[in-house]
Amino acid sequence: MASSTSTPNVRPGGTLGIVGGGQLGRMIALAAAQYGLKVHIYAPDADSPAFDVAHAHTLAPYDDPAALAAFADACDVVTYEFENIPHATAAVLAEHATLRPSATALLTTQDRLSEKDFVTSLGIPTAPYRAVDTVEDLIRALEALGRPAVLKTRRFGYDGKGQRMIREGDDPAALLAEFKGVPCILEGFVPFEREISVVAARGPDGAFAAYDPCANEHRDHILALTRVPAPGLTRATGDAAIAIARAIAEALDYVGVLAVEMFEIAGSDGAARLVVNEIAPRVHNSGHWTIEGALTSQFAQTVRAVCGWPLGDTARTGGMAVEMENLIGDQADSWVGLLAEPGAHLHLYGKAEARPGRKMGHVTRLKPLG
Amino acid sequence: MASSTSTPNVRPGGTLGIVGGGQLGRMIALAAAQYGLKVHIYAPDADSPAFDVAHAHTLAPYDDPAALAAFADACDVVTYEFENIPHATAAVLAEHATLRPSATALLTTQDRLSEKDFVTSLGIPTAPYRAVDTVEDLIRALEALGRPAVLKTRRFGYDGKGQRMIREGDDPAALLAEFKGVPCILEGFVPFEREISVVAARGPDGAFAAYDPCANEHRDHILALTRVPAPGLTRATGDAAIAIARAIAEALDYVGVLAVEMFEIAGSDGAARLVVNEIAPRVHNSGHWTIEGALTSQFAQTVRAVCGWPLGDTARTGGMAVEMENLIGDQADSWVGLLAEPGAHLHLYGKAEARPGRKMGHVTRLKPLG
Repeated sequence: MASSTSTPNVRPGGTLGIVGGGQLGRMIALAAAQYGLKVHIYAPDADSPAFDVAHAHTLAPYDDPAALAAFADACDVVTYEFENIPHATAAVLAEHATLRPSATALLTTQDRLSEKDFVTSLGIPTAPYRAVDTVEDLIRALEALGRPAVLKTRRFGYDGKGQRMIREGDDPAALLAEFKGVPCILEGFVPFEREISVVAARGPDGAFAAYDPCANEHRDHILALTRVPAPGLTRATGDAAIAIARAIAEALDYVGVLAVEMFEIAGSDGAARLVVNEIAPRVHNSGHWTIEGALTSQFAQTVRAVCGWPLGDTARTGGMAVEMENLIGDQADSWVGLLAEPGAHLHLYGKAEARPGRKMGHVTRLKPLG
Repeated sequence: MASSTSTPNVRPGGTLGIVGGGQLGRMIALAAAQYGLKVHIYAPDADSPAFDVAHAHTLAPYDDPAALAAFADACDVVTYEFENIPHATAAVLAEHATLRPSATALLTTQDRLSEKDFVTSLGIPTAPYRAVDTVEDLIRALEALGRPAVLKTRRFGYDGKGQRMIREGDDPAALLAEFKGVPCILEGFVPFEREISVVAARGPDGAFAAYDPCANEHRDHILALTRVPAPGLTRATGDAAIAIARAIAEALDYVGVLAVEMFEIAGSDGAARLVVNEIAPRVHNSGHWTIEGALTSQFAQTVRAVCGWPLGDTARTGGMAVEMENLIGDQADSWVGLLAEPGAHLHLYGKAEARPGRKMGHVTRLKPLG
């Protein structure tokens, strides 16, 4: 049994546990292997892509305390690739292993309401928001925040799932009914200039290292393109974005890699203003460019941070500009062409079926700074 | 059943078989995972480092035809990480799968005598050599080649194992007796200026791509340091070295990555001259720098070549200079310091025991071209 603040004595040859078997877990596992670690994956799906690159895996549901305990006991430190881990699951893991990031970080960021309350408590702006449990809540919230506004489930949302824009003329009661009674949040619409994110790491000793802020473009609510340096982002605004990520990491006593998505909006005085959209307590799609584009990838950095090792250099490789393009659904069919493109770095996640909207891989391109 | 010249239809999601479970197999497996392939490792040692990162493994001796056949049948294409594979093993593999590089490439390069006969047949210089099976052979060979000369076993030598310098005053009979009657070769001593190697790839369509030639420094017969560009190597000599590697690859109808080690010696006319020392029909320690130092690593390139995919760009990352240092035995104990060194890329192979002379990992550093 170990608390999340104790220092694990993880050495090469030791075992890193990862909860979740998707592409993020897979890429963390590949990075851990480079450092001579063994990886143990815990996931409920038999066709989890991360199983293919791990020393061991546990195929069990997230609500199986005995399997969770045995898994955690077999690991020197445990981390996770996604934030939708049930409270009870995190509790069992933290009881049997050093869980990094901590259960507190998980609980704070997996619920949109507690996340926004937390960010607001730090004096950092978010989109305006109201908790919505009933139609009456929603009507009052729409009166306060105006339309358009975005109704979201508090938990389990990703890639646009669990959210719905409410425009003039839409019937609040009918829209809320679509969410079948789960706790929701209404967020005021933010007319942003630019979506950016900061991927950063914090070690158990408080060391902090951020990658350069990147600009993100979404299509159909799914990340399509990440560019770094972020075109048009000033140095001052970029530094402010990193300061926000750092304040969040410190307030959570965070250990690991986190991503903070922000909107840059034009302030009334013409100055740029940042509002936090979402915190991901894990490696993030907008950090995939770091595999080739930075001296230490976000995956290697996660391993370093959760093992209590020195954080790696986050500088961009050769100071170049980097672009990361997601391959969604049948976009991955272009793999032969991408392999033939000079200098394109193709990554495929080993997923059996290319369903629409499914992240199948990504491609990263480095270019001299324009 | 497939011949080694047929085109395997290997797609992401398919299975790459690798014979051998050491660090080279491990790094090929990691590269294959990036392309969404599954990897199946065949090795006789239970603690093979490559097992930890593979979808499947077969733990069986190299002389188990049933296990070899079942392994090959489960793979879309089979390659290997080392050349000391018995003839019969290669034959079974080639009967049940597409084996790349071919059994011919393996047979030619795993025996120092047939390798040198082959290189000589192409009109490419090697060190002077003679076959040695008896003391009489050795005495005649020493008369022809002079002293010092190097007595080597024809097969199974690596990292200085299976070789012995013969100097003035040494007793040939006593030295030969140390090799216990295995077939040997005597090589004339080459007073070289520089040891270089060319790592290159050839696809089934004849496409060829070489990395920049690198300079190698050995300590105690084990590679210690690789530098690229090779300090002092002229463009003309480098191009000549690549032309030699290409001629060798084409003559073998080679498919995969190969490394050609050469000595650069000062010719009698003052011009540089290259002699081939050894051919490795596989990825090579002197190519480890390509993981971060080139746009396509030698491991990714192996995967591309043996799968019949387009070869990748071999240009150096950002045109930088690259240095790769091996971590031998207890040198790997410095891992924390290396993790803390800005921009140093640490690789550890997951080997349980740091025996003297054992390759435990390596570290790669990229620097602006001086």
